[in-house]
Formats: sequence, C-alpha cells, structure tokens
Amino acid sequence: MTETALGTTAICQVALVVKDVEKTAAAYAEVLGLPMPEIRVTGPEDETGIRYMGAPTEGRARLAFFDTGSVRLELIEPVSGPSVWLRHLKSHGEGVHHIAFRVPDMDRALAHASDKGLPAIQTGAFPGGCYAYLDSEPKLKVMLELLASKDA
Amino acid sequence: MTETALGTTAICQVALVVKDVEKTAAAYAEVLGLPMPEIRVTGPEDETGIRYMGAPTEGRARLAFFDTGSVRLELIEPVSGPSVWLRHLKSHGEGVHHIAFRVPDMDRALAHASDKGLPAIQTGAFPGGCYAYLDSEPKLKVMLELLASKDA
Repeated sequence: MTETALGTTAICQVALVVKDVEKTAAAYAEVLGLPMPEIRVTGPEDETGIRYMGAPTEGRARLAFFDTGSVRLELIEPVSGPSVWLRHLKSHGEGVHHIAFRVPDMDRALAHASDKGLPAIQTGAFPGGCYAYLDSEPKLKVMLELLASKDA
Repeated sequence: MTETALGTTAICQVALVVKDVEKTAAAYAEVLGLPMPEIRVTGPEDETGIRYMGAPTEGRARLAFFDTGSVRLELIEPVSGPSVWLRHLKSHGEGVHHIAFRVPDMDRALAHASDKGLPAIQTGAFPGGCYAYLDSEPKLKVMLELLASKDA
C-alpha cells in the first residue's frame, strides 16, 4: 500500500442492477449450479444513514448475493429513489453497476479517491460496515464502490 | 461440480470495453497505485481462429490487464470488427463488457451453457488457451466469457 492508494487492489465484488432480482437470481442459480440466495432489502435511511448527492434519500433496493470465488456477485433491484442504483437503471438499463474494493480505512481511501478526482456520490451503512460509491465512470468507465467493516 | 454446471463458480476476470486503452489504463494505474500495464494486441484470425456469429472475422482489439486480487481487470479497445467488443461499444458505450469463468472443460461447459439457453456468440484462441463469449445478456444482464487452458 502506498500512501496515496486505496489500501487494496483486490476487487471483492461485482454488482449488477436488474429489474427483477428474483428472476435474474434464478437464472444465475441455474447456470452456475448454485442455490437460490435469500433476497435482502436495504434498511431505511434512519438505519443506514444513506446519502445521495449529499442529501438523505428514500432510495432502497432489494439485493441477492452469490459467492463466486473470492468475489461476490451482487444483484440489485432498485425499489425506490433517488439512488445511484435507480439512476443507473434509468440511464444504462440492466447491467453491471459497480465493482467494489474492500478498503482498510474508509476516510483515507475517500481522501485518496477525492484527490484523484473521484468524489463520493452515495454513502451509507449496512449491518457490519459502510460503503461509498465513487463518481468514477468518466475516468474509469465503471462505478467503483469502497467497502469498509465497521470495526476496521 | 454438478453434471450440468460450468465446472466452476469462481469469477476470474472482469472486463471493460473502452475507447482508449492507454488513457483508461493510466487512470486505473493512478487510482489503484499499480504500474502501467503492457498493451497487447489480439492476434489475426489465422492465428486465433476467431469466429463471430459463426464466421471468421477481422475483429481485433488492444488489451491491458491489471491483477486485482484473484480476478484480473481487463481493458479492451476494439480496433476492428465485427466483434462482440465493437458491438458492445456501439450499443452500450464504454463500460463493463463481460465477466469470465475459467472452466476445466470447454466443450462440456459450452454444452451446459447451450442447454441453459446461452449459446456461444464469439470464440477464439490466444497463446495458452481459448475463450467463448456467451449470448447471456438477455438472461444474466451481462455477457459471460468462458476461458480454458489449452492443456486442460
């Protein structure tokens, strides 16, 4: 790790935005020979502290995860907005939404990203950790997500 | 591995189609703190046996790879066509083009995929192995690539 890097170079997650998480999860389960995953729902703003473009949002999503080696495959069905998920579905349609890196120090990683011209566009928490989506599409052609554990 | 599965569930590669591989590779190198990778060019059809939609093609691309944990990040700049790469750039613009799985038995994996409604749309070889892109976007919302080593 250099002083100016994110603290990791390992992709830990690939995530897609989809219209129907059950339907797409069932298709992956069939092709990969994996069990159908549980569908989870992101918590409300008063639990997650979600911020989109700097303001609290009602944006929520339904999620499914597959363990596909050392990276997890995440399927995201936006159910309300505004959010980066719903924006992506409207502007790009279904498809890959982000790739994620698990960072050891979120504040430091965010400072590095901002210094490289990649400010956070949506942030929030989930049980066990927090995340930040970076406005990285113009430079990197895909959105990056930073993930950190609460205890890290 | 079940009789009907691909033979792996581990994602080994995430690949993006880009317009300028040097420019985007430089941006990733800066953000991730990694060295600038060598740019490679796919071989001509008489070397790679590339087939697109069932026919030989002049489609070629310039490639850059980053080792990002157990998955490789691939950047693909189409330089001629037709190919799945150029088609993606025209229809979707820059962004994630495919996720890849390294299969132990290409023929068996292709038979499984075809049985699940995912026929190969482009195939070819590269030094050390061969690949097949599956027509998986309608069902899985992203293109899958199967990779196999020549000796496997």
